[in-house]
Amino acid sequence: MTNIRLLLEYDGSHFAGWQEQPGQMTIAGSLKEALSIFLREEIKKITASGRTDAGVHALGQVANFHTEQEVDLDKLAFGVSSLLRNKVAVLKAEIVSDDFHSRFNARQKTYMYKILNRRPAPVIDINKVWHIAERLDLDLMRKQSEYLLGEHNFQSFRDTNCGAKTAIRKIYKVQIDKAGDIIEIRVTGNGFLKQMVRIIVGTLVEYGLGKRPDSIQDILQAKRREIAGKTAPAWGLYLEEVWY
Amino acid sequence: MTNIRLLLEYDGSHFAGWQEQPGQMTIAGSLKEALSIFLREEIKKITASGRTDAGVHALGQVANFHTEQEVDLDKLAFGVSSLLRNKVAVLKAEIVSDDFHSRFNARQKTYMYKILNRRPAPVIDINKVWHIAERLDLDLMRKQSEYLLGEHNFQSFRDTNCGAKTAIRKIYKVQIDKAGDIIEIRVTGNGFLKQMVRIIVGTLVEYGLGKRPDSIQDILQAKRREIAGKTAPAWGLYLEEVWY
Repeated sequence: MTNIRLLLEYDGSHFAGWQEQPGQMTIAGSLKEALSIFLREEIKKITASGRTDAGVHALGQVANFHTEQEVDLDKLAFGVSSLLRNKVAVLKAEIVSDDFHSRFNARQKTYMYKILNRRPAPVIDINKVWHIAERLDLDLMRKQSEYLLGEHNFQSFRDTNCGAKTAIRKIYKVQIDKAGDIIEIRVTGNGFLKQMVRIIVGTLVEYGLGKRPDSIQDILQAKRREIAGKTAPAWGLYLEEVWY
Repeated sequence: MTNIRLLLEYDGSHFAGWQEQPGQMTIAGSLKEALSIFLREEIKKITASGRTDAGVHALGQVANFHTEQEVDLDKLAFGVSSLLRNKVAVLKAEIVSDDFHSRFNARQKTYMYKILNRRPAPVIDINKVWHIAERLDLDLMRKQSEYLLGEHNFQSFRDTNCGAKTAIRKIYKVQIDKAGDIIEIRVTGNGFLKQMVRIIVGTLVEYGLGKRPDSIQDILQAKRREIAGKTAPAWGLYLEEVWY
């Protein structure tokens, strides 16, 4: 058995998320199908570093699967990308040790969230940014984001039906950059709960609009989802990098 | 009469170019229609800084038109953008002096050309970049691009059915940047001939691939279109800024 690791880019707007669901076009399902066609062997399982939600994009998702064959890695990357043309690209394919697991071995991840902060709606970036018409105060957002750093219980920042056993996660870095009307928020941590980045971004945006009198410290302490801000839309979110 | 200047963003992939043509969806035609609906007055003419070709995008096209009315500029920008949702955005609308002319008064323009230089085809940037799978040598491209600077006869760098009386133009700057797999080539000049930027980029790419033994000096001297390289595709080109 060969264990093959893939580096993936995808446009989430074509998919109902990573995870396979009956009757839905999913990234895992489409990849398994394309790999099975390319390898002429049924690929029953593919594991990602994490399951991105419906609409979420990836610039550097990592996944792995096992095959019985010797594989020409360049041909596999090219062939599978062609089969999933314009929706998923295999940026790299490599052989890894048998015990490599995309999810369990992931040490850190960076998510990037893209906001278009101007009055007119997006044109060039349609489906790829969250459009916010009112001016955001980045200083306020940066100040609040500092409270996220370090190890915390992120109970307030996870979807109510998140299945993870513990809500304790560590955030290493939050970076907020602006170029023209585009704001990019990068969050790096040792792992993320369901919708955690989107709830963090939705909450930071409420601070940026001057809509909240409290602080992120208060929200962390409350440990209740309804205290945090609204979940930011999926189409602004990109899984950028996974470290092993 | 009020003379109104518009700053425009558009996704060229929806249009058969700026200029009106019977039976075609064009940017000028769509804007005239939307302005006429919004103002309840037939807008017969709209002039741009230059006519972008089919498929070419704009981040900062400038156009102007005349109206008989007093206009709420913010409402106009918002209303026309809404009517042309996802295709054209009016980034700014302002009243200018009666004799302002978007084309004749333009002093300088910057075009940006975007290349995705990696083996896998584009996913996130589909229809927004020229995909070149083989590695480009940017040093070779930068070296050749220096011969474009200054005033030259650009006969070799214009489409054979370009109608401009003279091919003499001045190029102030050519900048080639790379971030990740994205290469951005910016060309600033006092004016551009038909397909001039796309022929320049197509030619620079041939140098970047090590495919040409000659130099841009030779091509300029030849004054024949067939000596230059292939025209780069429209979908990588963006009109970025116009100076007055």
